[in-house]
Amino acid sequence: MSAESIQAARTRTAGLVAVTPTLHSLALSQLSGAEVYVKYENMQHTGSFKTRGAAAKLTTLTDAQKKAGVIAMSAGNHAQGVAFHAGRLGIPATIVMPKGTPFNKMRKTRDYGGTVVLEGDTLTEAAAAARRIGAERGLAFIHPYDDEDVIAGQGVIGFEIMEAHPDAELIIVPVGGGGLIAGIAVAAKSVKPGVGILGAESALYPSMKNAISNQHAPSGGATVAEGIAVADAGTLTTAIVKSCVDDVLLVSEANLERAISMYAGAGKTVAEGAGAAPLAALLQYPDRVKGKKVVLVLSGGNIDPRLLSSILMRDLVRAGQVLTLSIALPDRPGSLEAITAICASEGANVIEVSHRRLGLDLAASAARLDITIETRDQDHAAQIIGKIRAAGFEPTVHEP
Amino acid sequence: MSAESIQAARTRTAGLVAVTPTLHSLALSQLSGAEVYVKYENMQHTGSFKTRGAAAKLTTLTDAQKKAGVIAMSAGNHAQGVAFHAGRLGIPATIVMPKGTPFNKMRKTRDYGGTVVLEGDTLTEAAAAARRIGAERGLAFIHPYDDEDVIAGQGVIGFEIMEAHPDAELIIVPVGGGGLIAGIAVAAKSVKPGVGILGAESALYPSMKNAISNQHAPSGGATVAEGIAVADAGTLTTAIVKSCVDDVLLVSEANLERAISMYAGAGKTVAEGAGAAPLAALLQYPDRVKGKKVVLVLSGGNIDPRLLSSILMRDLVRAGQVLTLSIALPDRPGSLEAITAICASEGANVIEVSHRRLGLDLAASAARLDITIETRDQDHAAQIIGKIRAAGFEPTVHEP
Repeated sequence: MSAESIQAARTRTAGLVAVTPTLHSLALSQLSGAEVYVKYENMQHTGSFKTRGAAAKLTTLTDAQKKAGVIAMSAGNHAQGVAFHAGRLGIPATIVMPKGTPFNKMRKTRDYGGTVVLEGDTLTEAAAAARRIGAERGLAFIHPYDDEDVIAGQGVIGFEIMEAHPDAELIIVPVGGGGLIAGIAVAAKSVKPGVGILGAESALYPSMKNAISNQHAPSGGATVAEGIAVADAGTLTTAIVKSCVDDVLLVSEANLERAISMYAGAGKTVAEGAGAAPLAALLQYPDRVKGKKVVLVLSGGNIDPRLLSSILMRDLVRAGQVLTLSIALPDRPGSLEAITAICASEGANVIEVSHRRLGLDLAASAARLDITIETRDQDHAAQIIGKIRAAGFEPTVHEP
Repeated sequence: MSAESIQAARTRTAGLVAVTPTLHSLALSQLSGAEVYVKYENMQHTGSFKTRGAAAKLTTLTDAQKKAGVIAMSAGNHAQGVAFHAGRLGIPATIVMPKGTPFNKMRKTRDYGGTVVLEGDTLTEAAAAARRIGAERGLAFIHPYDDEDVIAGQGVIGFEIMEAHPDAELIIVPVGGGGLIAGIAVAAKSVKPGVGILGAESALYPSMKNAISNQHAPSGGATVAEGIAVADAGTLTTAIVKSCVDDVLLVSEANLERAISMYAGAGKTVAEGAGAAPLAALLQYPDRVKGKKVVLVLSGGNIDPRLLSSILMRDLVRAGQVLTLSIALPDRPGSLEAITAICASEGANVIEVSHRRLGLDLAASAARLDITIETRDQDHAAQIIGKIRAAGFEPTVHEP
């Protein structure tokens, strides 16, 4: 991979993809102790960087290939990226998704003009089906990351960052298959060889970390960063990451959730789990970034609204600003009132109440109160719990 | 108000305030039928445009005034804007808030270095207290909108918009007290007299609409756009709006909620209710914008995470993607299973279940099932309801 091929991809995709802003974030800088800049690739067409690689690849096809059409496998951003640009360029696109893919993801791809085919029970089976169908029908296969043209398309982001902020010292990039970080590393280091490039990968799916360090840490589990939950890093991408990337940092689910919340709360922007991974790395490894000019690549914002809604609430619970208590109440008039009076006098807003008389964990004459209240912070929460204890009850705190 | 005084404010506040991006949004354009550009003033320091006016005012003070300090009344963005810049400029700032102001809002203002004083039970009483304390202590009063320097500071946004997109045909601006729209209208029309300026005001608080049309429509009620829930438009601002603004559109709460959701979902950005008002106007009055190049001023992103979380969920309910059914079940084995089997065969994910045997609305031998499921869309929801009916149950749909 050469910087020249990334420049060529930039020329080919000019006007097809958006030039997204790279801006200083005072709020995130104050929270993190680094000088934080964000590359808002969540504002790219289709909500993620994937359209860059798709555009870069589609513009290399011959007229005959364009007429025959293309095929790709993805249940996520790559599907939308390929469908979007194929639609704009008048190229028929078939997108293979595994059976059971949420309807919303199929709909978005169809809205962009892609033909969705459900094949296979897993991503691996779906990928095999896409290769097979592509060969049968003579369709060009668009790989999500392990392809020189795709990598070159993503790499344009590296040029945009260095042009907007030539004094950047460190760029942190989400790592799944590795196409995004490989392209950015080559482009950015061609402009400024001394700029540091760090990957941020989900600790549950350490594929690239394994690949570059010859380890075999297990991968799997439920993650909020499904966009980088990749079983195998690419071959081309691994070679580039080995030579151009300084390190890959593994981030926890808790920090991914915190990062999504912090982007919404302080950053006023919507990040999907994968897109929030660089901010999660900054939170998890503060010593790696302290005092440095750091660019976080916010690679995408396609998060399910239900997941975002739930993460925002969980963060408030974690911060002690939403507190759920379970309290066994003796079955006599006034016991519920005793609790609600404490909440009222403490200025704690009651969000939800459930009061049950049935339950084998309770004495026959008792009731169970589950009460969710809004508190100022952890100190306030502790004070309310203390008052409830002092009144003779035994509240149990529900963990988030 | 002259364009020159806005230019002067721009010079005074350069380096103190952020120059925020104005970007085309393909996603919002496709949803609305207009060519939509967004002025991301939610990415301003402190998360809203209010810091511009505060900076513009503070930089006009004499050294003696700066030393004595300033006072302002606000429970929201103006408080943060004044505290932030006063802190940076080394000016002591006292912010009066009404009693009962949520702790979070006090904390943010204190974090920026402001001294918070709680006075009065309403905003009107708090404002009177701020005037009184300011007079007693010799502190300069920083009005949130009815002040030439404050209006000039907000007006800089108008220049930034016209420089970024000289071909803009229409700018839609949130209207509360009127400082933001007054400044933007003067600046933008000085560059391009033919550009249209529309205000977007909460239908529950039609203060500016009343003021410019000599009407007396009532104002009050719970709104998600508390930033523009103003009892009285300013005197200075009303005069400017009368001469420079083409119309003020009133937007409903439902459209404000839709706009907040659409900004998060399609726009990948976080808008508070007031900031989403221009998008709400675009949704509510499509004929006013169709085919035009429209700039929406997204004035702020300081929305409570709990409110944002709840609006995202309510939008899914409204779209039929989250459905809550209440069903009376006969008290015999298998009746709960009959319902869950239908949900499973329809691919509807169960989110929440409550199954109760007590309730005066039920026969003694029956139970009440409340079940919340995730569906693909309204058609899918209707299909599931039909199957449950066909199985002999009478489900009631809970409205959002």
